[in-house]
Amino acid sequence: MRTDPGSPGHLMAAEIAEQPESWRTLLEGTAQIEQAAAKIRDASPRFVLLLARGTSDHAALYAKYLLEIRHGLPVGLVSPSTMTAYSARPDLRDVLMVAVSQSGGSPDLVRTLEVAREQGALTVAVTNNPSSALAANATVSVDIMAGTERAVAATKSYTHQLLALFLLLERARGADTADVGRLPDLAAEVLGQDESMSSAAARYRFAHRLVVTGRGYSYPTAREAALKLMETCYLSAQAFSGADLMHGPMAMLDPDVPVIAVMAEGRGGDAMRQVMPRLTATGAEVFIVGSAEAVTLTGRGLALPSDVREELSPLLEILPLQQLALHLALERGSDPDAPRGLNKVTETL
Amino acid sequence: MRTDPGSPGHLMAAEIAEQPESWRTLLEGTAQIEQAAAKIRDASPRFVLLLARGTSDHAALYAKYLLEIRHGLPVGLVSPSTMTAYSARPDLRDVLMVAVSQSGGSPDLVRTLEVAREQGALTVAVTNNPSSALAANATVSVDIMAGTERAVAATKSYTHQLLALFLLLERARGADTADVGRLPDLAAEVLGQDESMSSAAARYRFAHRLVVTGRGYSYPTAREAALKLMETCYLSAQAFSGADLMHGPMAMLDPDVPVIAVMAEGRGGDAMRQVMPRLTATGAEVFIVGSAEAVTLTGRGLALPSDVREELSPLLEILPLQQLALHLALERGSDPDAPRGLNKVTETL
Repeated sequence: MRTDPGSPGHLMAAEIAEQPESWRTLLEGTAQIEQAAAKIRDASPRFVLLLARGTSDHAALYAKYLLEIRHGLPVGLVSPSTMTAYSARPDLRDVLMVAVSQSGGSPDLVRTLEVAREQGALTVAVTNNPSSALAANATVSVDIMAGTERAVAATKSYTHQLLALFLLLERARGADTADVGRLPDLAAEVLGQDESMSSAAARYRFAHRLVVTGRGYSYPTAREAALKLMETCYLSAQAFSGADLMHGPMAMLDPDVPVIAVMAEGRGGDAMRQVMPRLTATGAEVFIVGSAEAVTLTGRGLALPSDVREELSPLLEILPLQQLALHLALERGSDPDAPRGLNKVTETL
Repeated sequence: MRTDPGSPGHLMAAEIAEQPESWRTLLEGTAQIEQAAAKIRDASPRFVLLLARGTSDHAALYAKYLLEIRHGLPVGLVSPSTMTAYSARPDLRDVLMVAVSQSGGSPDLVRTLEVAREQGALTVAVTNNPSSALAANATVSVDIMAGTERAVAATKSYTHQLLALFLLLERARGADTADVGRLPDLAAEVLGQDESMSSAAARYRFAHRLVVTGRGYSYPTAREAALKLMETCYLSAQAFSGADLMHGPMAMLDPDVPVIAVMAEGRGGDAMRQVMPRLTATGAEVFIVGSAEAVTLTGRGLALPSDVREELSPLLEILPLQQLALHLALERGSDPDAPRGLNKVTETL
């Protein structure tokens, strides 16, 4: 990857590459996460609301799967306008609200978290800036410790959000999380296959549309990959859960719309496999990011390390897709560090 | 609109056109809805989960806004795979689960509702088939009374879902719903502007990508319009809330990507207005479905009747967008009654 200062994409390339090392920093700084986890455990919430936008919304979606599957809690993603534009004041006793934001600066999220706290929720802010307004307004604050992120397209802050949420929620239920220690080495191994992703980028040079799909824990990966491709490559990239694809969007697929299917080992990948016959029947060319065995389904893809449990796979799955967005943006002559029309901190009211 | 039997799109055209009259049938059959509303009121749930896929998921999203804003309840959209593929067994005491499905036949929804009932939720099925497995598995069943829907692309069943959910949820809080009686005449008025939508369809004949946006109650309309365009016209149509658009996808917009902005009178439309300067700055051509005053923002659009409260606007906003999908599919030479690769009842496990 190109990391020479000043060249287009050098910030994004550097931030993608530093993930294995920067994860180690977070893995060594878990005392703050233990404290936050203890507060969640003590509160024993009955319902959880997640509050986020953009890339952080995909980390929130990952947390939704963890909470529903591993905590057995009903979970909702907040529609922020209801508490801002519409001034809703819901009864939030017994509710845990987790806000996820890189900057911690978006006014609508800050206001919503404030209202939630007044309405009785235990509020937790997961941010990359412990002195942000969002962190200051929360009962409990978690620092994702990604370091300064300078590229407009979020990469390392996303995987840090995933890792911080995994540790926070697993520790809140007292689970053993020792195996996260393997992740930096596995990430380095995945990032080492960069060549596969630059070839894929060359192939998609003239595509204008693209679909990313996955199920279960891999669905947030599909959503995040699509966003990354939209914001850096200006592609109409759409993400669907494998099941939702069958409820309409399947009609749109044909040999001119490349598909990326995320199929890690586990139940999500198994569920995705059921969709594959109908997907390949459309004639769409399917690139698989998943288990070595899944890649053989189409013979086109990138194999992830084996024996990684499904809850941790999203941390690895997204890495080659970040590389794809970077390479494809460069192939198309745009600068992924500063996409047109975007700022690093998005202020929505 | 073409309704001669046998011609492509005649089923969809007929089903779009019959909405004002078929709504009257539902408005005369509200005793069943009153009964269901009373059960919800008696249960006084503290949290609501909505269960749906495809078009019905957009009706569920509409219900989410009603529940958050007007009931002040925290709400989540269920990720069905968590209770099926992942066998999650959440604690659902004090939870209301509302399943929305035209056919009531999708196995994953039936199974999820069954689990939810076992786990303590009050379960309500809102379907177009009171003898479906979903209706049979629910504690309470609501019939949306749309009559048989024969086109694969759902149109009348969507607006019937919206209307049934509005009546169910407003009656559950004892609100006056007398003004729904105006809706059939207003719908006929909107459908009478079909010519505007056939001109719009001609203009989009060669577009391959399109974005639909809206905020608040209009966001579900944007989602449903995008799905309709995907499934009948094979366009890469993407929907974003006006706020989410600013968190990344804005970069993808340029003069080659037409945008449809849904901006009815009310707070959602007002919130959308804040996004318009950045949206028009991309050079994208924006067609507005909304208040007469909103249409003047770009001079291109379709004006909805005035003095309709925001909670009811989604019933009217979607009508011209259904017409657009129909006309555009015909312009492109495809048959919107039977899109490639889709069946009427989608069976996902």
